[in-house]
Amino acid sequence: MKALLLVAHGSRRTVSNIEIAVVATSLRKQVGDDFALTRHAFLEIAQPSIPDAIDELIADGADDITVLCYFLSAGRHVREDVPAFVEDKRKQYPEVKLSLAPYLGQAPDLIGVLHHLAKI
Amino acid sequence: MKALLLVAHGSRRTVSNIEIAVVATSLRKQVGDDFALTRHAFLEIAQPSIPDAIDELIADGADDITVLCYFLSAGRHVREDVPAFVEDKRKQYPEVKLSLAPYLGQAPDLIGVLHHLAKI
Repeated sequence: MKALLLVAHGSRRTVSNIEIAVVATSLRKQVGDDFALTRHAFLEIAQPSIPDAIDELIADGADDITVLCYFLSAGRHVREDVPAFVEDKRKQYPEVKLSLAPYLGQAPDLIGVLHHLAKI
Repeated sequence: MKALLLVAHGSRRTVSNIEIAVVATSLRKQVGDDFALTRHAFLEIAQPSIPDAIDELIADGADDITVLCYFLSAGRHVREDVPAFVEDKRKQYPEVKLSLAPYLGQAPDLIGVLHHLAKI
Protein backbone atom coordinates (compact mmCIF):
# COMPACT_ATOMS: atom_id res chain seq x y z
CA MET A 1 0.00 0.00 0.00
CA LYS A 2 1.40 3.38 -1.04
CA ALA A 3 1.57 6.29 1.39
CA LEU A 4 2.70 9.90 1.20
CA LEU A 5 4.22 11.73 4.18
CA LEU A 6 4.42 15.52 3.97
CA VAL A 7 7.18 16.78 6.27
CA ALA A 8 7.33 20.36 7.55
CA HIS A 9 9.66 21.99 10.04
CA GLY A 10 7.23 22.50 12.91
CA SER A 11 6.60 25.79 14.69
CA ARG A 12 5.92 27.14 18.16
CA ARG A 13 2.94 28.90 16.54
CA THR A 14 0.06 26.43 16.69
CA VAL A 15 -1.60 28.11 13.72
CA SER A 16 1.45 27.39 11.53
CA ASN A 17 1.24 23.70 12.40
CA ILE A 18 -2.47 23.72 11.64
CA GLU A 19 -1.65 25.25 8.23
CA ILE A 20 0.41 22.12 7.52
CA ALA A 21 -2.45 19.83 8.56
CA VAL A 22 -4.71 21.76 6.19
CA VAL A 23 -2.21 21.39 3.34
CA ALA A 24 -2.00 17.64 4.06
CA THR A 25 -5.80 17.38 3.97
CA SER A 26 -5.97 19.13 0.58
CA LEU A 27 -3.11 16.97 -0.67
CA ARG A 28 -4.91 13.80 0.49
CA LYS A 29 -7.88 14.69 -1.71
CA GLN A 30 -5.62 15.51 -4.65
CA VAL A 31 -3.44 12.37 -4.57
CA GLY A 32 -6.02 9.80 -3.51
CA ASP A 33 -5.66 7.84 -6.76
CA ASP A 34 -1.90 7.48 -6.27
CA PHE A 35 -1.53 7.16 -2.49
CA ALA A 36 -3.90 5.23 -0.22
CA LEU A 37 -2.71 7.19 2.82
CA THR A 38 -1.47 10.79 3.06
CA ARG A 39 -0.32 12.24 6.39
CA HIS A 40 1.96 14.94 7.73
CA ALA A 41 4.80 15.06 10.24
CA PHE A 42 7.12 17.65 11.75
CA LEU A 43 10.91 17.62 11.92
CA GLU A 44 10.93 19.22 15.36
CA ILE A 45 8.93 21.21 17.93
CA ALA A 46 5.49 19.84 16.90
CA GLN A 47 3.90 16.40 16.75
CA PRO A 48 3.67 13.89 15.12
CA SER A 49 7.41 13.37 14.64
CA ILE A 50 8.74 11.84 11.43
CA PRO A 51 9.60 8.46 13.07
CA ASP A 52 6.20 8.23 14.77
CA ALA A 53 4.36 9.05 11.55
CA ILE A 54 6.34 6.44 9.58
CA ASP A 55 5.68 3.83 12.30
CA GLU A 56 1.97 4.58 12.15
CA LEU A 57 1.80 4.43 8.35
CA ILE A 58 3.48 1.01 8.43
CA ALA A 59 1.20 -0.16 11.26
CA ASP A 60 -1.73 0.89 9.04
CA GLY A 61 -0.46 -1.24 6.17
CA ALA A 62 1.79 1.03 4.11
CA ASP A 63 4.76 -0.75 2.49
CA ASP A 64 5.78 1.95 -0.01
CA ILE A 65 6.18 5.39 1.59
CA THR A 66 7.20 8.62 -0.16
CA VAL A 67 8.52 11.40 2.09
CA LEU A 68 8.07 14.89 0.69
CA CYS A 69 9.74 17.88 2.36
CA TYR A 70 7.57 21.01 2.51
CA PHE A 71 10.66 23.23 2.48
CA LEU A 72 11.72 25.90 0.00
CA SER A 73 15.44 25.68 0.64
CA ALA A 74 17.89 22.78 0.86
CA GLY A 75 19.37 23.62 4.24
CA ARG A 76 20.68 21.09 6.73
CA HIS A 77 17.16 19.88 7.54
CA VAL A 78 16.46 18.84 3.95
CA ARG A 79 19.97 17.61 3.15
CA GLU A 80 20.77 15.75 6.39
CA ASP A 81 18.11 15.57 9.09
CA VAL A 82 15.15 14.23 7.11
CA PRO A 83 17.29 11.74 5.10
CA ALA A 84 18.78 10.49 8.41
CA PHE A 85 15.30 9.73 9.77
CA VAL A 86 14.41 7.95 6.52
CA GLU A 87 17.62 5.92 6.60
CA ASP A 88 16.98 4.84 10.21
CA LYS A 89 13.52 3.63 9.25
CA ARG A 90 14.87 1.78 6.19
CA LYS A 91 17.11 -0.21 8.56
CA GLN A 92 14.26 -0.81 10.97
CA TYR A 93 11.84 -1.92 8.22
CA PRO A 94 13.89 -3.48 5.39
CA GLU A 95 10.70 -4.86 3.81
CA VAL A 96 9.23 -1.35 3.37
CA LYS A 97 10.18 0.89 0.44
CA LEU A 98 10.98 4.39 1.74
CA SER A 99 11.64 7.09 -0.86
CA LEU A 100 12.48 10.79 -0.62
CA ALA A 101 10.77 12.99 -3.20
CA PRO A 102 12.46 16.22 -4.35
CA TYR A 103 11.74 18.97 -1.81
CA LEU A 104 9.17 21.62 -2.69
CA GLY A 105 11.71 24.33 -3.58
CA GLN A 106 13.00 22.12 -6.41
CA ALA A 107 9.69 22.03 -8.28
CA PRO A 108 10.04 23.77 -11.66
CA ASP A 109 6.32 24.59 -11.69
CA LEU A 110 6.73 26.79 -8.58
CA ILE A 111 7.58 29.57 -11.03
CA GLY A 112 4.11 29.35 -12.58
CA VAL A 113 2.56 29.42 -9.09
CA LEU A 114 4.50 32.60 -8.28
CA HIS A 115 3.38 34.15 -11.57
CA HIS A 116 -0.27 33.49 -10.72
CA LEU A 117 0.14 35.01 -7.25
CA ALA A 118 1.83 38.11 -8.64
CA LYS A 119 -1.17 38.76 -10.91
CA ILE A 120 -3.88 38.33 -8.22
CA MET B 1 6.27 50.67 -15.25
CA LYS B 2 5.32 47.49 -13.41
CA ALA B 3 7.83 45.62 -11.26
CA LEU B 4 7.80 42.43 -9.21
CA LEU B 5 9.88 42.00 -6.05
CA LEU B 6 10.33 38.46 -4.73
CA VAL B 7 11.10 38.59 -1.00
CA ALA B 8 12.78 35.71 0.84
CA HIS B 9 14.01 35.48 4.40
CA GLY B 10 17.75 35.45 3.76
CA SER B 11 20.18 32.87 5.08
CA ARG B 12 23.71 32.62 6.46
CA ARG B 13 24.21 29.90 3.84
CA THR B 14 25.33 31.68 0.66
CA VAL B 15 23.98 28.85 -1.47
CA SER B 16 20.46 29.39 -0.08
CA ASN B 17 20.60 33.04 -1.09
CA ILE B 18 21.84 32.05 -4.53
CA GLU B 19 18.84 29.69 -4.81
CA ILE B 20 16.61 32.76 -4.41
CA ALA B 21 18.49 34.66 -7.10
CA VAL B 22 18.01 31.66 -9.41
CA VAL B 23 14.27 31.56 -8.65
CA ALA B 24 14.07 35.31 -9.40
CA THR B 25 15.87 34.79 -12.71
CA SER B 26 13.42 32.03 -13.73
CA LEU B 27 10.53 34.17 -12.58
CA ARG B 28 11.80 37.13 -14.62
CA LYS B 29 11.64 35.02 -17.79
CA GLN B 30 8.17 33.74 -16.89
CA VAL B 31 6.54 37.09 -16.06
CA GLY B 32 8.25 39.32 -18.62
CA ASP B 33 4.97 40.14 -20.35
CA ASP B 34 3.40 41.35 -17.08
CA PHE B 35 6.33 42.96 -15.26
CA ALA B 36 9.05 45.03 -16.91
CA LEU B 37 11.38 44.42 -13.94
CA THR B 38 11.65 41.41 -11.63
CA ARG B 39 14.13 41.38 -8.74
CA HIS B 40 14.63 39.75 -5.36
CA ALA B 41 15.32 41.02 -1.86
CA PHE B 42 15.92 39.57 1.60
CA LEU B 43 14.14 40.37 4.84
CA GLU B 44 17.33 40.02 6.86
CA ILE B 45 20.87 38.64 6.94
CA ALA B 46 21.49 38.91 3.17
CA GLN B 47 21.52 41.72 0.63
CA PRO B 48 19.77 43.47 -1.08
CA SER B 49 17.38 44.52 1.69
CA ILE B 50 13.71 45.16 0.92
CA PRO B 51 14.01 48.98 1.24
CA ASP B 52 17.12 49.08 -0.95
CA ALA B 53 15.49 46.91 -3.62
CA ILE B 54 12.35 49.09 -3.67
CA ASP B 55 14.47 52.26 -3.88
CA GLU B 56 16.36 50.79 -6.83
CA LEU B 57 13.22 49.67 -8.66
CA ILE B 58 11.79 53.18 -8.34
CA ALA B 59 15.09 54.75 -9.42
CA ASP B 60 14.93 52.49 -12.49
CA GLY B 61 11.44 53.76 -13.37
CA ALA B 62 9.00 51.42 -11.60
CA ASP B 63 5.81 53.11 -10.40
CA ASP B 64 3.70 49.98 -9.74
CA ILE B 65 5.50 47.40 -7.60
CA THR B 66 4.14 44.05 -6.45
CA VAL B 67 5.89 42.48 -3.45
CA LEU B 68 5.60 38.68 -3.30
CA CYS B 69 6.73 36.78 -0.19
CA TYR B 70 8.55 33.53 -0.93
CA PHE B 71 7.38 32.05 2.39
CA LEU B 72 5.27 28.97 3.08
CA SER B 73 3.87 30.11 6.41
CA ALA B 74 2.27 33.33 7.63
CA GLY B 75 4.54 33.93 10.59
CA ARG B 76 5.47 37.33 11.96
CA HIS B 77 7.71 38.05 8.95
CA VAL B 78 4.85 37.71 6.47
CA ARG B 79 2.17 39.26 8.68
CA GLU B 80 4.12 42.19 10.13
CA ASP B 81 7.71 42.73 9.00
CA VAL B 82 7.29 42.76 5.22
CA PRO B 83 4.04 44.82 5.33
CA ALA B 84 5.83 47.34 7.60
CA PHE B 85 8.59 47.82 5.02
CA VAL B 86 5.98 48.23 2.29
CA GLU B 87 4.02 50.77 4.36
CA ASP B 88 7.18 52.82 5.02
CA LYS B 89 7.88 52.96 1.29
CA ARG B 90 4.27 53.92 0.52
CA LYS B 91 4.76 56.97 2.76
CA GLN B 92 8.12 57.77 1.21
CA TYR B 93 6.82 57.43 -2.38
CA PRO B 94 3.12 58.37 -2.39
CA GLU B 95 3.14 58.50 -6.20
CA VAL B 96 4.16 54.83 -6.48
CA LYS B 97 1.66 51.97 -6.19
CA LEU B 98 3.01 49.31 -3.83
CA SER B 99 1.00 46.08 -3.52
CA LEU B 100 1.49 42.92 -1.49
CA ALA B 101 0.62 39.70 -3.33
CA PRO B 102 -0.60 36.67 -1.34
CA TYR B 103 2.42 34.80 0.06
CA LEU B 104 3.49 31.57 -1.62
CA GLY B 105 1.95 29.24 1.01
CA GLN B 106 -1.49 30.62 0.15
CA ALA B 107 -1.39 29.47 -3.47
CA PRO B 108 -4.08 26.83 -4.08
CA ASP B 109 -2.06 25.33 -6.95
CA LEU B 110 0.76 24.40 -4.54
CA ILE B 111 -1.18 21.19 -3.97
CA GLY B 112 -0.78 20.22 -7.63
CA VAL B 113 2.95 21.01 -7.41
CA LEU B 114 3.27 18.69 -4.39
CA HIS B 115 1.38 15.97 -6.26
CA HIS B 116 3.81 16.17 -9.18
CA LEU B 117 6.81 15.96 -6.83
CA ALA B 118 5.39 12.95 -4.99
CA LYS B 119 5.12 11.04 -8.28
CA ILE B 120 8.66 11.81 -9.54
